[in-house]
Amino acid sequence: MSDRNQWKHDPRQVLRAGAGFDVRSFDRGGTPGWSRDRATGEAAMVERGADLSELQERLYADGRTGGTRSVLLVLQGLDTAGKGGIVRHVAGMVDPQGLALASFGVPTAEERTHHYLWRIERRLPPAGRIGVFDRSHYEDVLVVRVDSLVPEAVWRPRFDEINAWERRLVDGGTTVIKIALMVSYAEQGERLMERLDRPDKHWKFSMGDVTTRSKWSAYQEAYAEMFGRTSTEHAPWYVVPADKKWYARLAVTEILTRTMEDLDLGWPAATFDVVQARAALQATMVRPPA
Amino acid sequence: MSDRNQWKHDPRQVLRAGAGFDVRSFDRGGTPGWSRDRATGEAAMVERGADLSELQERLYADGRTGGTRSVLLVLQGLDTAGKGGIVRHVAGMVDPQGLALASFGVPTAEERTHHYLWRIERRLPPAGRIGVFDRSHYEDVLVVRVDSLVPEAVWRPRFDEINAWERRLVDGGTTVIKIALMVSYAEQGERLMERLDRPDKHWKFSMGDVTTRSKWSAYQEAYAEMFGRTSTEHAPWYVVPADKKWYARLAVTEILTRTMEDLDLGWPAATFDVVQARAALQATMVRPPA
Repeated sequence: MSDRNQWKHDPRQVLRAGAGFDVRSFDRGGTPGWSRDRATGEAAMVERGADLSELQERLYADGRTGGTRSVLLVLQGLDTAGKGGIVRHVAGMVDPQGLALASFGVPTAEERTHHYLWRIERRLPPAGRIGVFDRSHYEDVLVVRVDSLVPEAVWRPRFDEINAWERRLVDGGTTVIKIALMVSYAEQGERLMERLDRPDKHWKFSMGDVTTRSKWSAYQEAYAEMFGRTSTEHAPWYVVPADKKWYARLAVTEILTRTMEDLDLGWPAATFDVVQARAALQATMVRPPA
Repeated sequence: MSDRNQWKHDPRQVLRAGAGFDVRSFDRGGTPGWSRDRATGEAAMVERGADLSELQERLYADGRTGGTRSVLLVLQGLDTAGKGGIVRHVAGMVDPQGLALASFGVPTAEERTHHYLWRIERRLPPAGRIGVFDRSHYEDVLVVRVDSLVPEAVWRPRFDEINAWERRLVDGGTTVIKIALMVSYAEQGERLMERLDRPDKHWKFSMGDVTTRSKWSAYQEAYAEMFGRTSTEHAPWYVVPADKKWYARLAVTEILTRTMEDLDLGWPAATFDVVQARAALQATMVRPPA
């Protein structure tokens, strides 16, 4: 394992949304816990990616041999906050066979005929996998609230419902890591403008992005209450400043890696007689059977 | 795009299973089309990986904007041939969001109640994605034949059925690339023994691997007829020597990259008025709405 002590403070401590966390004064351009420069951060991320890759393989091996553990990384953030970049650059460092990705957009006709957790449940990672959710059930207390898609009397009870549901996941062996990527209003504007300036980015833009941006304050309020109500002991929120993409990726890598280190996964013991297997295999070494 | 001319011959030509291809005399330790050394090959693979990554993003953008194209990479090979390594090291070079992976093991109880292509159909890549099959419908003319799981009168008509089914996929916009990783008998023995020698590899071994190895000749015969019957113009087989892992990965990278270059994918044109969008966005730049 490489040196995790390059961090001045554990990002799981400094980024955790605890009591008194104030989303309005939160600096989205900061690098909490990391006092070194960008180049050092990028090098550290590559090194920790190698650790993460081995941890992923151990988790996978555990799942293949009867283990019930899995990891679920939930990504939330407004447009341009960098959710896709986390999937590509952080999750992309491990074997894709060990991932279970899911992206949650506007619910389909079928999904709308079910409880809002139904489509989420179906995409939970199986044992041995790292699930990554690009948006999640939290949309049901964010966009649903901001756009008044259901009355407050319907969405407000969801905080408790989500906490209880995540409790069940954790009890079942899933480690839940919730990441909110928080971009500043100015930076979001620049990133959207870049999509308009570059023809190879036009496909990522829609006029709806400007509409959503106009609801900025309502979203900040919705995020603030979401943190207050659903950052639990069993499934805490980590609020990650996202104006510096290199920092956000480094921080998520470190949070994920440290959390998986704490699982203390060994390699599964052989379920067969190794000496006997070696003898049986040795007997086949001479030449192919006719 | 980097220099594809490092290859002496196009691997799509020299590895293609055409008329007169002889699986028995095929050198599994060779590096057809590549006359440079391993280090040069590994460097070339990284460079081509960057090309592949951009091609994947273009394909994804195409799929997000109404395009119907997709790519399907079918991987076949005996135990230890390196199918998983191709997924990890070749497919792993692109954004995992652009992949649709599927691994086909022994059919489940539900799958057995359906036609053998039913479970395959369900895992086809959606438009814009690169699907990767770790094993496939070809198991239904390989293990099924070798282990006599159904009578010959049942499996033999499958060659024509598969050709017709793949024809439909290709007509629907899917580019089908079929890769057979061919390892030698001696190399397979060494790779299995390594799994027994290393405690961190024990979980990958099962006594069934030795049993399967004992059917080597029957499998070679089954592969030979499969190539002869299903290497079509619309969906050819590429037979890749797999004793040198670096070569197999390099060759598959190059085959996939060249095939995707031939799709000639541009970036999708904007479906909105860019000038108007820029003005609307510019108007939001001053400060967040209250």
